[in-house]
Amino acid sequence: MKWYQYVYYNYGNCYLPWWTMVTYYPSNLPKDPINEGNWTVYAYQQDHESVININFPAENWSFEQMNALPLNAPFPAYKALGNRTAPVILTQLVGDAVGVTYFDGIIYVPSDANELYAINAYTGKLIWEATTANSVMSNPIVVNTSRGPIVYVSVGDAGFSASHSIFAVITGNYKNVVRGYSYGAVYAFNATNGQLLWVHFDDGNVMPTPAYIDGLLIYGDGSGHIVALNATTGQVVWRDYVGVSAFDSMSSTNYYVFPNGTTIAIMGFTLALPPYGELIAVNVQNGQIVWEFALPKGFTPFNTGMGDVSPAVDEEKGIVVQSTIVNFNKTNETVGFAVFALNATNGHLLWIEQLVRGYVPPAFKGGVPTIYNGVVYVGTPVANELFALNETNGKILWVAQIPNVQGPPNGAGGGRANPVYVNGYIIEPAGAYIDVYNASNGQLVKSYYVGGRFGIVNAVVVGSTVFVDNSYNWVFAIPLNELIS
Amino acid sequence: MKWYQYVYYNYGNCYLPWWTMVTYYPSNLPKDPINEGNWTVYAYQQDHESVININFPAENWSFEQMNALPLNAPFPAYKALGNRTAPVILTQLVGDAVGVTYFDGIIYVPSDANELYAINAYTGKLIWEATTANSVMSNPIVVNTSRGPIVYVSVGDAGFSASHSIFAVITGNYKNVVRGYSYGAVYAFNATNGQLLWVHFDDGNVMPTPAYIDGLLIYGDGSGHIVALNATTGQVVWRDYVGVSAFDSMSSTNYYVFPNGTTIAIMGFTLALPPYGELIAVNVQNGQIVWEFALPKGFTPFNTGMGDVSPAVDEEKGIVVQSTIVNFNKTNETVGFAVFALNATNGHLLWIEQLVRGYVPPAFKGGVPTIYNGVVYVGTPVANELFALNETNGKILWVAQIPNVQGPPNGAGGGRANPVYVNGYIIEPAGAYIDVYNASNGQLVKSYYVGGRFGIVNAVVVGSTVFVDNSYNWVFAIPLNELIS
Repeated sequence: MKWYQYVYYNYGNCYLPWWTMVTYYPSNLPKDPINEGNWTVYAYQQDHESVININFPAENWSFEQMNALPLNAPFPAYKALGNRTAPVILTQLVGDAVGVTYFDGIIYVPSDANELYAINAYTGKLIWEATTANSVMSNPIVVNTSRGPIVYVSVGDAGFSASHSIFAVITGNYKNVVRGYSYGAVYAFNATNGQLLWVHFDDGNVMPTPAYIDGLLIYGDGSGHIVALNATTGQVVWRDYVGVSAFDSMSSTNYYVFPNGTTIAIMGFTLALPPYGELIAVNVQNGQIVWEFALPKGFTPFNTGMGDVSPAVDEEKGIVVQSTIVNFNKTNETVGFAVFALNATNGHLLWIEQLVRGYVPPAFKGGVPTIYNGVVYVGTPVANELFALNETNGKILWVAQIPNVQGPPNGAGGGRANPVYVNGYIIEPAGAYIDVYNASNGQLVKSYYVGGRFGIVNAVVVGSTVFVDNSYNWVFAIPLNELIS
Repeated sequence: MKWYQYVYYNYGNCYLPWWTMVTYYPSNLPKDPINEGNWTVYAYQQDHESVININFPAENWSFEQMNALPLNAPFPAYKALGNRTAPVILTQLVGDAVGVTYFDGIIYVPSDANELYAINAYTGKLIWEATTANSVMSNPIVVNTSRGPIVYVSVGDAGFSASHSIFAVITGNYKNVVRGYSYGAVYAFNATNGQLLWVHFDDGNVMPTPAYIDGLLIYGDGSGHIVALNATTGQVVWRDYVGVSAFDSMSSTNYYVFPNGTTIAIMGFTLALPPYGELIAVNVQNGQIVWEFALPKGFTPFNTGMGDVSPAVDEEKGIVVQSTIVNFNKTNETVGFAVFALNATNGHLLWIEQLVRGYVPPAFKGGVPTIYNGVVYVGTPVANELFALNETNGKILWVAQIPNVQGPPNGAGGGRANPVYVNGYIIEPAGAYIDVYNASNGQLVKSYYVGGRFGIVNAVVVGSTVFVDNSYNWVFAIPLNELIS
């Protein structure tokens, strides 16, 4: 098989700390791909409904990435680390933490093993792969530009260095709390052949997924900045400082377009000091803050919650929905799980509900909500439950227990990714299963065994096929009718 | 060229999170290697005198590791991270943090880019390389065993996870402060061909170098444990818990043999609570604590200092020497630099001297001392100085300024590795140079330009050749007479 390999040691005048090796198999490109617009935001749509309604066949394949584990293997280092830490380290440092992207007949797969894969969506064959300087925990963004289709991925990690960590607290100097132990960066590759176009390094992690808006890539980083890059060149267009001790962990940028065309970018930040967390909306043209939202009295965000979850946006109704863990009880070490909705125009609170109390999830501190047809669907790793809420007032329509979540009550949580609505069903991967619920009453319809473990992985439905990846470094194409009939 | 490649997906019944790939070039093995005993402890000898007096020729070669940077390149991501953070991330996550090991004609090179290299000491040609699950920040230990020569390397990282970091402090729960963001482990490879013999995973980092004593590998880890492994099988023989919120960052194990043959293993721990740091000695046979030493009143260890430095041991006089930063001044953010000596038998303080005050070093918080002929040689990154002290009372014999250390006053520090005594000279790499001093008065004799940057890298002198590696992923063999004449 004919293939090409490129090794990039630098870009412009700047050397890469890890070179980027791209291996390209042109003969594996899709023959007549069906394109359906740009993938500009985490989980495809502003409302996090990851469904592409095109005429795509029912495919069935699996792709084993580098370092893939047998699907029935126990977590590596399980004995040394236990069932709370072993799966977290695997997901945050080796396997795929978040879901895949579809664009133009290609599935882009982000791997924490410092890899990005481009795979033929029809055949499961590798088109190209590229190495990066840190874990790819972002959902790849793919956009047609004047330079052709470009795939953007951000890289970063969830660690802290000693100087930004406990010693910052001991010395009382919170000024420099930065999330991200190793390099944070954004990479731009030619989406078809993997050619490296540019790299932008950042201070702190770039774990969250940037949003592509009006030619800019916009994201929050681990150093308390909101950054806008020119998507064509990688140059910084503007860069805001949110404030001391603020960082965006995994809160991928969403956006809302005002009726007059003004667009705001919205994302969550964790603050190490009161109010401990904020949702921030900035004007995409100049970075000016349009509104900031902190939780009301009675709801104190805990841990990385507010900086973890990507808010969902209902463009039509002008509503933003997010979740976070709140109100840590030091005595029994439990937390509450809150979901709230804001007016997208001014950030005013529409409703907030504390739905359950439970244990502190071991990593991602919330559930990514989806808004579909007036209903908010959101899982919670605090209690391994899935909720359907009235979008207008937050009242519970139904609640379902997520089955088969690995580990005992304090084990790794289920229900972290955005639930996806398809034909009257909700699809939500959790643990080693893809679970399917009746969307109208929450009844569990099917638990489809895959094996391994799902991170914050949502299903991506393209026509008649569902695509998922997992923490064991696999990618799967599953015919939709195997999940719903 | 004939070569072999092995990929290890598991060992025993346990899957590896990153498979270990070993590539072996048997034709590059040394023809008639000269062996000179086992390399059982960090920096070769208990007194940290890294000199092997054998008849070895004057070689001159350089070896470019994977991801090597041009020696005159600026630090990657320098613009985004600045001159305090960019070199630290490079050294802690990509390049070589500590010095090399010589054994039987082979140089073993630990790389933070998750690699171990075995290189022909005569020719600079690659014999084998192996990938690991995390950074190799340890000085490889090589020992002839009943299974042939084995090279042991420990892996780990200097990061913290969120749950072991600032939120531990916010919630007041210090119980679980563990250092190490990703996997910590010890690997055993056949020293000749790289065959993987066993892997032991650990809770927290294993950045420090284990000592090989009486068939055991003994080390402190990031979770506050002291661990003894059977060096042949990798099984845990005993495992001590030092206490809550204790971790060994980079304090490699040393040892002392009592006149009656009883051997103690000695290493430093950082404590997040008072007394903030300890030196601990355990009986190697059963792990029982023989003595614990905390600094006296007037000396409060700061940051990771006590857990960073490997103590030097004078076996003949029964003296242990270590350094640490102390007495942080919150107002001007300076620290003191203290060196102290203990009675190796009971851990009683013989002397302690605060030598200088200066800025907080960006990473490694001390200087590894060497004891040679009644003199303690120790550098300090706090002030970029090199000291010679009377071993008996700690009085300063001379002090020398380390020249050419990169960056402004708060830049990366020099003088972290153990100085090495050769023929009346002291060799100490710092910044981009190998500096040579007159051992009797501290006068700078030569600054030999290498390029790149040295981490905690000591020179290893084998006969007529000096071996060093650096943070830019290079290994060098330099004829000794180019440094001293």
